[in-house]
Amino acid sequence: MTTPSHRAPGHITAGSRIIALGHYQPTEVLGNEEVGERAGVQPEWIAKRTGIRQRHVSPSEETVTDMAVKAAEHALASTDDATDIDTLIVATSTAASTIPSTAAQVASELGLANPAAFDLNTACSGFCYALACADALIRSGTSRKVLVIAADQSTSWLDWNDRETAILFGDGAGAALVAPSTTPDIGPVVWGSMGEKADAIEINADDQFIHQKGRAVFRWASDLGTVAREICEAAGVAPERLAAFVPHQANTRIIDALAEDLGVPPGKVAKDVTHSGNTIAASIPLALSRMAADNDLPTDEPILLFGFGAGLAYAGQIVTLRAS
Amino acid sequence: MTTPSHRAPGHITAGSRIIALGHYQPTEVLGNEEVGERAGVQPEWIAKRTGIRQRHVSPSEETVTDMAVKAAEHALASTDDATDIDTLIVATSTAASTIPSTAAQVASELGLANPAAFDLNTACSGFCYALACADALIRSGTSRKVLVIAADQSTSWLDWNDRETAILFGDGAGAALVAPSTTPDIGPVVWGSMGEKADAIEINADDQFIHQKGRAVFRWASDLGTVAREICEAAGVAPERLAAFVPHQANTRIIDALAEDLGVPPGKVAKDVTHSGNTIAASIPLALSRMAADNDLPTDEPILLFGFGAGLAYAGQIVTLRAS
Repeated sequence: MTTPSHRAPGHITAGSRIIALGHYQPTEVLGNEEVGERAGVQPEWIAKRTGIRQRHVSPSEETVTDMAVKAAEHALASTDDATDIDTLIVATSTAASTIPSTAAQVASELGLANPAAFDLNTACSGFCYALACADALIRSGTSRKVLVIAADQSTSWLDWNDRETAILFGDGAGAALVAPSTTPDIGPVVWGSMGEKADAIEINADDQFIHQKGRAVFRWASDLGTVAREICEAAGVAPERLAAFVPHQANTRIIDALAEDLGVPPGKVAKDVTHSGNTIAASIPLALSRMAADNDLPTDEPILLFGFGAGLAYAGQIVTLRAS
Repeated sequence: MTTPSHRAPGHITAGSRIIALGHYQPTEVLGNEEVGERAGVQPEWIAKRTGIRQRHVSPSEETVTDMAVKAAEHALASTDDATDIDTLIVATSTAASTIPSTAAQVASELGLANPAAFDLNTACSGFCYALACADALIRSGTSRKVLVIAADQSTSWLDWNDRETAILFGDGAGAALVAPSTTPDIGPVVWGSMGEKADAIEINADDQFIHQKGRAVFRWASDLGTVAREICEAAGVAPERLAAFVPHQANTRIIDALAEDLGVPPGKVAKDVTHSGNTIAASIPLALSRMAADNDLPTDEPILLFGFGAGLAYAGQIVTLRAS
C-alpha cells in the first residue's frame, strides 16, 4: 500500500538553506569545431560571440530522468543529512514526455520513500523558481526537506544547422538539497514574467526545434541589472558585498553586461558557460556544484543567483552556503 | 523595462483560501456513440464501465493556453478582489510546447503585471499540488495572491482507436484564485508519489499517445481511501463531517469506491466526470466551478479535494469556501 508523506503540522522554520549540491554532465563533449561546421560558422566566431568553448551532449539513449537521477545522487552522496526528503521538484523543459512527471520517476529511482514529486517549468529560470518554492514549502511547514533538481537536454530539440541556437546549448543537470535553517539562508525571491515576449525563445510546435531571437533576448537580458539589484535589496545585501554572482549561464556577453552593471568584479562571476554551454534550468546548480567541486564556492557569504530566459521569465535570490 | 513583482517581506499570514473559481470547456461535445464507434465499443458499455456520458473536445486550433486564459477570466470576473495577483501557476501535462511556459503566456494574455509564472506538472494530481504550493507561497509571505489554473487538452494525445483511453478523456480548464486568510481555509496537504508504477499511465515517447493500464490504475486508485482519511486527519476533520468530496474525476467506479470507503454519502460526492470525462489536472477545479455555478457548492463547511493519477502521484487537502 501507499506510504504517503506525513506532514509535520506547525513545523514552521525561520528559513531554509542548501545543504548539498550535485551535478551531472554527459561524457560526450562537442567543441566549437564540430558545432560550427554543422551550423556553418567559424569556431572562433562562436567563442568570441558567446564565450562558449565546448558543451556536453547526451547520447541518444540518455533521458532527462537519467541525468536528474545522477545529479541528485551526487548531491545526496555529499552529505550525511540526506534522510527525510519528503518533496522532490524537477525543473525541466525538455523531458521526452510529461506523463508521468519526471519527478515521480526520479524519486523512485533514487529510492526515496514516496515523496511529493512534481515537475516545474519556467525554462532558464526554472531552478531559481523551484528554489523559491522549496524555501516557501519549508518555511510554511509544508515540507521538511526538498530535493531540487534541474535537468535539461536541449540538444534533443536543436536544429544543428541553426546558428542562432546550435552554438549555444548543452545538456546537463544540477541538484540542491534544501533543509530547514534557523537563518534565512535562501533570501527573498524576486521573480516575474513578461509573456508578451513569449516568442523570443520557443520550441516551435511544428518543427519541435528551439528557436531564439538572439538580438531581442540579448537586449532584454543585458538590461536586467535593475532586477538583480532588487534581489540584493530584498535581502538587504549591497551588491559590493556579494561573494559570488552566479547568473544563468546563457553566454559570456550577457553575464559580463550584468556583472558590470552590478559592479561585481570578474573574479567573483561564474562563467561555467565556457565549459558547459547553456544548459537551460540546469545552468545555475551545475555552475554552483562545479564551483564547489573546485573549492571555488564561498561559504558564510552572500551569493547572488539569477535565472532568466524563455517566458520571458526571471527569478533570483541571495543564498548563503555554510561550511559543513 | 521590466516591472518585477515586488515581495512584501515578512507578510506572513495564518492561512489562505480560494476566493474565486472559474472554468472553461470547449463547445464541441462528443457523446458515447461517436467515441464508441471509433474505439470499437458500445456506448452503453462506456456508460456502464466509466459513468461517462459525454466529454468536451477542443477544436484543432485551440491550445491549452487559450483554455487556461478563459477559465481564469471566468474566475477573475466572479470577484471584485482580483487585484494584486503576483503569482500564476498553470498545472498542465498537455501543452503543445514547454518553451516558453504556458503560465507566462497566460499571464500576458490576462494583462497581469509581470507576475511570477510557472507551469507545474503532476498530471491528474496537478491542481492539488499547485494549490498546496499556492498556500505555502502565501503563508510564507513569498506571494500575496496566487492564480492557480489547471488546463489539459488530452484529446490531442489520444489514440481514438484505443478503448483503454479514448472513452475516458475530455478537454477543459479550471481556475482558483488564492488569497491570504486569517483562517487556514486551505488545509494541510498530504501528497506523495509512487514512481515505481510510472508505466501505469504514460504518454509513450514513440507514438505520443496516452496509454493506460486500466486495471492496475483502478486497483491502485480504489485503494487510496487510506490517504483520503489521512488528509481529513491532518485537517482535524472527521470524514462524516465533510460537506462535499471532490476527488479527481477519473471514472465513477473509482469515485464510488473511494466515497464508500470514506463513508461519504452519494449526494455529497462530485461526479462531474459524467458530463466532462477525465480532464486530467483540470478535473477538480472544473468540478468545483461547475458546482458553484449550479449553487451546489457548500460554504463555511469542509470540502475534501483529492487528486490522483499518473506518476503515480496523489495530493489532497480540505478546503473551506466562504460566502462572499
